[in-house]
Amino acid sequence: MEKLSKIGKYEFLAEPFHCDFSGHLFMGHLGNHLLNAADFHSNERGYGMNYLNTVRKTWVLSRLAVEMDDMPGAYDRFSVETWVDDVMRFFTSRNFRITGQDGHVYGYGKSIWAMIDVETRQPADVLSVRGGLIKDYIEKEYPCPIAQSSRVKMSGEASPVRQTDTCYSDVDVNGHVNSVKYIEHILDLWNLDWYRKHPVRRFEIAYVAESHQGDRLHFYCERRETDVDFNVRIAKEDPDCGETEVCRCRVLFV
Amino acid sequence: MEKLSKIGKYEFLAEPFHCDFSGHLFMGHLGNHLLNAADFHSNERGYGMNYLNTVRKTWVLSRLAVEMDDMPGAYDRFSVETWVDDVMRFFTSRNFRITGQDGHVYGYGKSIWAMIDVETRQPADVLSVRGGLIKDYIEKEYPCPIAQSSRVKMSGEASPVRQTDTCYSDVDVNGHVNSVKYIEHILDLWNLDWYRKHPVRRFEIAYVAESHQGDRLHFYCERRETDVDFNVRIAKEDPDCGETEVCRCRVLFV
Repeated sequence: MEKLSKIGKYEFLAEPFHCDFSGHLFMGHLGNHLLNAADFHSNERGYGMNYLNTVRKTWVLSRLAVEMDDMPGAYDRFSVETWVDDVMRFFTSRNFRITGQDGHVYGYGKSIWAMIDVETRQPADVLSVRGGLIKDYIEKEYPCPIAQSSRVKMSGEASPVRQTDTCYSDVDVNGHVNSVKYIEHILDLWNLDWYRKHPVRRFEIAYVAESHQGDRLHFYCERRETDVDFNVRIAKEDPDCGETEVCRCRVLFV
Repeated sequence: MEKLSKIGKYEFLAEPFHCDFSGHLFMGHLGNHLLNAADFHSNERGYGMNYLNTVRKTWVLSRLAVEMDDMPGAYDRFSVETWVDDVMRFFTSRNFRITGQDGHVYGYGKSIWAMIDVETRQPADVLSVRGGLIKDYIEKEYPCPIAQSSRVKMSGEASPVRQTDTCYSDVDVNGHVNSVKYIEHILDLWNLDWYRKHPVRRFEIAYVAESHQGDRLHFYCERRETDVDFNVRIAKEDPDCGETEVCRCRVLFV
């Protein structure tokens, strides 16, 4: 088998009905394309879900940050390049670069993935898989000039702004609420009037716990230093301890 | 320009995160692929949105019925064939056939589209567009062996089962709630326990009025003759008359 390059490149179309009122791709659909690119890239190189399923392990998205200068418009063809830029024992770091057909760079993404054992749900050693095969594909030079995700500190003063029940269409094949669905639910906290003036510039999310169909999610939001910069926390109702944090996020608008 | 065949065929991938807990494509995402196929097919033949936008007209989906023997699974590549099988003055009828790579037929769809003037929102004469060009592409022989949509009669006894506020991610580039989003909201009325025993067999929807971001939608549901067969009505709150019907639907489960 010919050895593949470290960077994978995948073509996508900004489908018209995946675009918002302004004719630009929804951040949630972009996030889905990034996850697809990561999935294709890791499967092609032998350390993706297809192989991991056979050894009862899986990748779990832990953090995602996306920063965009602009978004593909309806019918635009664009590419997602993705590569692993660092591997630790229980985590890998994966970057994304989103470009147009003319080479125009729309933006970048950074993500952190944990490997877990599907039975115990405990961390699994990334380097034990296929003798550390993934290390052959580390690419440290290719640029991804956006900030790392940083831990979002919330003041405890964040206001409850919405609650929603999770439904059938929130849940993916893993049996829990899909990572992209949280992005959609969070961005739904702002209305069209807001988005007319303030497209999303940067979106960061850290996934803390899983939620499942039937869970009631509570959304808390607070402003950061400027009035286009927000922290959002999602918590699920938990009969034992009131609420459990599910994810925490920062949204920076233009 | 070479004349294209009457039937268009488009390839899609059942993306892993577009699949439900059972690993099968969500009906909403299938619906999106059908709409994409219709869009590609009509644009390629000169009577699609790309041309209509230049003469201030547009297509509006009026009815959709989809009947599936089974659904593509995660990573399956499948094709959507689509063709116009009838043209009336203000409406066209368009069929769909969904097949796997081995020729296996997953199911079929039927749809009705109205042409309207974008300024007046009144019906526009389909045959006046490019001298009735669309008539050159009518295909009446290719089989689509499912029942037409029939008018869903509701008894007036249907129970209110949910209400939801429409959000940013519900609205597409046309400025109103996307056709596929109604499908998702309707199928969210049933939970995972239900879907474990009862996949969707047939889904029919008639679009009556548009709704917009901020509208509060009320869902009413009633059983038909069997306990896997339901009617659903969505109405939006309306300050003038209480509620206005937005769409009406039938869902038949296995």
